[in-house]
Amino acid sequence: MPQLSADDLHAFLDAHFPEIASLQFRVETVSEGAIRVRMPASRAMLRPGGTVSGPALMSLADAAMYLLLLAHIGPVAAAVTTNLNINFLRKLPPGDVVANAHLLKLGRRLAVGEVSMLGAGEGEAAPAAHATVTYAIPQNGGDS
Amino acid sequence: MPQLSADDLHAFLDAHFPEIASLQFRVETVSEGAIRVRMPASRAMLRPGGTVSGPALMSLADAAMYLLLLAHIGPVAAAVTTNLNINFLRKLPPGDVVANAHLLKLGRRLAVGEVSMLGAGEGEAAPAAHATVTYAIPQNGGDS
Amino acid sequence: MPQLSADDLHAFLDAHFPEIASLQFRVETVSEGAIRVRMPASRAMLRPGGTVSGPALMSLADAAMYLLLLAHIGPVAAAVTTNLNINFLRKLPPGDVVANAHLLKLGRRLAVGEVSMLGAGEGEAAPAAHATVTYAIPQNGGDS
Amino acid sequence: MPQLSADDLHAFLDAHFPEIASLQFRVETVSEGAIRVRMPASRAMLRPGGTVSGPALMSLADAAMYLLLLAHIGPVAAAVTTNLNINFLRKLPPGDVVANAHLLKLGRRLAVGEVSMLGAGEGEAAPAAHATVTYAIPQNGGDS
Repeated sequence: MPQLSADDLHAFLDAHFPEIASLQFRVETVSEGAIRVRMPASRAMLRPGGTVSGPALMSLADAAMYLLLLAHIGPVAAAVTTNLNINFLRKLPPGDVVANAHLLKLGRRLAVGEVSMLGAGEGEAAPAAHATVTYAIPQNGGDS
Repeated sequence: MPQLSADDLHAFLDAHFPEIASLQFRVETVSEGAIRVRMPASRAMLRPGGTVSGPALMSLADAAMYLLLLAHIGPVAAAVTTNLNINFLRKLPPGDVVANAHLLKLGRRLAVGEVSMLGAGEGEAAPAAHATVTYAIPQNGGDS
Repeated sequence: MPQLSADDLHAFLDAHFPEIASLQFRVETVSEGAIRVRMPASRAMLRPGGTVSGPALMSLADAAMYLLLLAHIGPVAAAVTTNLNINFLRKLPPGDVVANAHLLKLGRRLAVGEVSMLGAGEGEAAPAAHATVTYAIPQNGGDS
Repeated sequence: MPQLSADDLHAFLDAHFPEIASLQFRVETVSEGAIRVRMPASRAMLRPGGTVSGPALMSLADAAMYLLLLAHIGPVAAAVTTNLNINFLRKLPPGDVVANAHLLKLGRRLAVGEVSMLGAGEGEAAPAAHATVTYAIPQNGGDS
């Protein structure tokens, strides 16, 4: 079961990751093995022609998996991404973007999740991007 | 052989991708099938504790592959990333980051490259991150 | 909606891919955007110690996505895998393995799906392996 | 520096992985951080039309990385693949296939390498397939 709520996660980001907090990612829901994170629309996330940029979606996928992991193991700031694989499936017009992430594995040393991203108003449409993300969980200060 | 020089690529970014240009990525060298791109140090790229963030490295990998592709097929703005896979191998301290990218495949519709990233002063050390990136090359306005 | 049934797919494999057919992969269900494929237990798929091998799971993921694609676009033998990314999440003991695959994107030129694999008797447990697979769909004999 | 020679690796495979040994993968050279492994031509590795199959190349990539790791850490049979990402770049006609693998990272718990595969007679041509592979190195019997 989750150990941290959406409010806990926001407080943690504000304290430890001000540059992520400044992107204004918002945790909408936390449930067992899953999280929903919203990236608000901003001019900085857009490519010419007005589509959401790949780097913005990669940042969102990485942050969603990080928040999903923290929600389940508690505030371990030192968890680090070891692998991220993302498929960009279709263009996403300007607007808020929502990431639905869920855990595929939560081991002692590695956690793996998948993240589907789509426009906030798109309901259950096919995702615009899909990522799998692996985090290494630190062991008593050790390195991976 | 490359069709665009480093200066051509900078001019193209300035005209079409002001938000990438604003990150001040600099093309250092272009050669047959390869490119070297530098990401200057900035406070925005750092995580707490002073290591270069994953999203900054993912943006660099994506941009390096895009510039590598443009250098070889000419200024086709509409090429889009379809897949990016990145392994984060070790922490990178603050400072300029250099990406060495080379083409694995340049097809009519898909281009694939690999990108090794390391600190600017680290010489030939093992990479801090390594990515493979696929771009779709548009065909007469078609979609992938 | 699917264009081919499980029986159609078995007949296609028998005719065109006898070496896949010899692995005895069985299509259990086909539905809109999804397929379920079973890999029967065999000694050849095991590693010493009696766990299902990585290559057996990679073959299953690739075949499941291929069958999922054929079910939706018809019998286009020439579709080829362009990218496969797999995470191995836990060891799988001997026995039948089931792959649940569904489409993330079905474009004109690229199709992307994800595949979750687990033991046949494990119900809705967490997957033992998870893959995302991209296929290129040939255009009038063209190359990617 | 490598701890095991090509002959050591063959003896290890014969003793512990008879089903890999039966594929007759041959270690051609071992050097610091690198290995070259040959997969002999066989009818079983071919797709209809006579191209080397994706699963055969995935097996080769996985085995090459495993042998590369063993060569550098000694005969630790229990190392397991955690992630494999492969791009298929062009069709490969029948014949021996050569994999050139080198280490990107050799950590205490994770090792990452890249593997380029091409036809044995193709010299320094562009690779036909390229993979990055991560192995988890067991710690005193622990799980990842």
